[in-house]
Amino acid sequence: MSRPDPCFGEPSATASLVAHAAAALTGVRARRPRVHCLTNPVALELSANMLLAVGAEPSLTGHAAAVAEFVRASDALVVNLGMLEPQRAEGILAATDAARAVGRPWLLDPVKVEQSAPRRQFTEQLLLRRPTVLRGNGAEIAALAGNAGDPVSALSRRIRAVVAQTGPVDIVTDGTRRLDLTHGSPLMDRVTAMGCAASALTGAFLAVEPDPFQATAAALLVLGLAGEIAAARARGPGSFVPELLDTLFTLDAAAMGAQARRP
Amino acid sequence: MSRPDPCFGEPSATASLVAHAAAALTGVRARRPRVHCLTNPVALELSANMLLAVGAEPSLTGHAAAVAEFVRASDALVVNLGMLEPQRAEGILAATDAARAVGRPWLLDPVKVEQSAPRRQFTEQLLLRRPTVLRGNGAEIAALAGNAGDPVSALSRRIRAVVAQTGPVDIVTDGTRRLDLTHGSPLMDRVTAMGCAASALTGAFLAVEPDPFQATAAALLVLGLAGEIAAARARGPGSFVPELLDTLFTLDAAAMGAQARRP
Amino acid sequence: MSRPDPCFGEPSATASLVAHAAAALTGVRARRPRVHCLTNPVALELSANMLLAVGAEPSLTGHAAAVAEFVRASDALVVNLGMLEPQRAEGILAATDAARAVGRPWLLDPVKVEQSAPRRQFTEQLLLRRPTVLRGNGAEIAALAGNAGDPVSALSRRIRAVVAQTGPVDIVTDGTRRLDLTHGSPLMDRVTAMGCAASALTGAFLAVEPDPFQATAAALLVLGLAGEIAAARARGPGSFVPELLDTLFTLDAAAMGAQARRP
Repeated sequence: MSRPDPCFGEPSATASLVAHAAAALTGVRARRPRVHCLTNPVALELSANMLLAVGAEPSLTGHAAAVAEFVRASDALVVNLGMLEPQRAEGILAATDAARAVGRPWLLDPVKVEQSAPRRQFTEQLLLRRPTVLRGNGAEIAALAGNAGDPVSALSRRIRAVVAQTGPVDIVTDGTRRLDLTHGSPLMDRVTAMGCAASALTGAFLAVEPDPFQATAAALLVLGLAGEIAAARARGPGSFVPELLDTLFTLDAAAMGAQARRP
Repeated sequence: MSRPDPCFGEPSATASLVAHAAAALTGVRARRPRVHCLTNPVALELSANMLLAVGAEPSLTGHAAAVAEFVRASDALVVNLGMLEPQRAEGILAATDAARAVGRPWLLDPVKVEQSAPRRQFTEQLLLRRPTVLRGNGAEIAALAGNAGDPVSALSRRIRAVVAQTGPVDIVTDGTRRLDLTHGSPLMDRVTAMGCAASALTGAFLAVEPDPFQATAAALLVLGLAGEIAAARARGPGSFVPELLDTLFTLDAAAMGAQARRP
Repeated sequence: MSRPDPCFGEPSATASLVAHAAAALTGVRARRPRVHCLTNPVALELSANMLLAVGAEPSLTGHAAAVAEFVRASDALVVNLGMLEPQRAEGILAATDAARAVGRPWLLDPVKVEQSAPRRQFTEQLLLRRPTVLRGNGAEIAALAGNAGDPVSALSRRIRAVVAQTGPVDIVTDGTRRLDLTHGSPLMDRVTAMGCAASALTGAFLAVEPDPFQATAAALLVLGLAGEIAAARARGPGSFVPELLDTLFTLDAAAMGAQARRP
């Protein structure tokens, strides 16, 4: 449902939104975009496997001397600050330079920026390089937004980028348009790096959908609906991960529509 | 069964020990402790997912300049020496400094200390910083204990810490009290980093149970019983991991008691 | 089926080839070889778990100052260039020095060598150290072979090593003998680091089978047949991984023979 003109009582994912997300997923499968991910060590495997499950091609090399070649060969760049080390920070600077030079969309995921002063400074440095999308959880967005009544919108306007805050409700805004998505499962919080993988998945959608607001909303809706379907089949967080990857591999418009209409 | 007053013939986990371990698990779920893990790259995902499955909150950042902030925000610290690199060693020194300064319990896991002279030296350096618990396998404990008839007790007295030796029999001692636990599954040896993850799990119990001997025994008993339940459902080491995480997510006193009484 | 004397119409894995691969797998389980893997971060867990599933013992330490001790204690070395960083490159040089000094077989996996000029240079430097086996995909082999009509054979003759090109058809050659194996599943391309894990598995077979051509063919045939069995049980790439590890854990000559005879 769209804001700032909210229509309470409607399901959070309208039929047209689901149809758009399903079409974007089809586009990812058809075009098999390359997504270069500079992410933290614990997020590498799930991020890469989620990209492969939807048909994208991940690459992960982070060394500053090599990363530009990989970014130029890719269709989108994802930068994640979890477990940040100086060597990875150097690679991130080289990668974002390359992405800007060739006009690739890129996403910033400022993991735990609220807990680390050096990471906060590095995030501000990266914001000057104009990410296409910033995705974080509530604490991360709040730390970057300052004392705003509506931190997601305030941050979007400050950095002139799409901002997505994920959690029990996923909020996506470009400062003008806004969506609140309520799909997903509590099991997603019981798997490490699920937020990082959501960022990686968003990179695949940025590669095929030119409107970054629509791309981000589509990626998060696909993941939320797949998470619900997988959670219904899982017995806990262990079986949830293979179920989620299997679901992303086979998900289509019909299954997304049916899941979105569930009460 | 408790030593040095052994009662052969009893099941290794008495009803009171199971009850205590189940209560500690309930405490972890209720308090959701933050556990900071400085572990090797191959152990990151399983360690974090095991912590999340029992309701703890892992953090994993290892860089020396950032780690103290994370340790201060955590309830326990776990240090694992697998795949040790100089940069991680620096982070470990900073983290253990921070843990000592704020009085956090910390666990040392000296992976393959018997195979590497530099790692042996670093372990001795860390022992001077007084870990709360040291956990290792038989070869690691033997390398650190020297020529002792009872290496686990000898090492515990030398380093004045709880020592846990895991294997077909898990031995836990603080130099005075001792438990020998016989639960677990051979499949646990067919999954990489299972010992590292046992250390991470012990960190969660150290955060909620003030007696480190009891905390360590509870963590290893929970993992051993969960391992048996998961192995009964698994077809091999691949399905064992999701089964184990699902079991840890739902395990309760009744299921633990029933499993402990099995012949 | 063997080349350069091809017999079209026969199944790609003859009964004698299957019998040899099953015997080699039995040898791995009996001897439990130690395989030291210097691989990229995203490949660590799957590589280690695949080795453990067949009964081998992985070690993974990569630091230059420690790696020689681990290589000397191992039966084979596997070197993978994915996500290459200078520190890992130093460790690789130390490890290959140690492997040559003690006569251990070693395998080189030049991940994405076609996409990175520095990685190409490092690969050529490593080729002077005479790997026992080089395994790559079609793009990697083509980049190293130059303009040859038969790049796999040309590369094998240039570097005087067994070369394996994996993909829809796996080609193994030592410059004289050649096998084309057609087993496997498309799901293997939807799991990150599956090629890296194939290299790790080949290391285990190199440790027990003195003929590196036979060892490589056996490893790839075991993995291809296990992949087909696992794919028949999986619902997508998520469930495929645990099914594959379970299959490798229990696979025997009868199951391999039955799968190889399927049309």
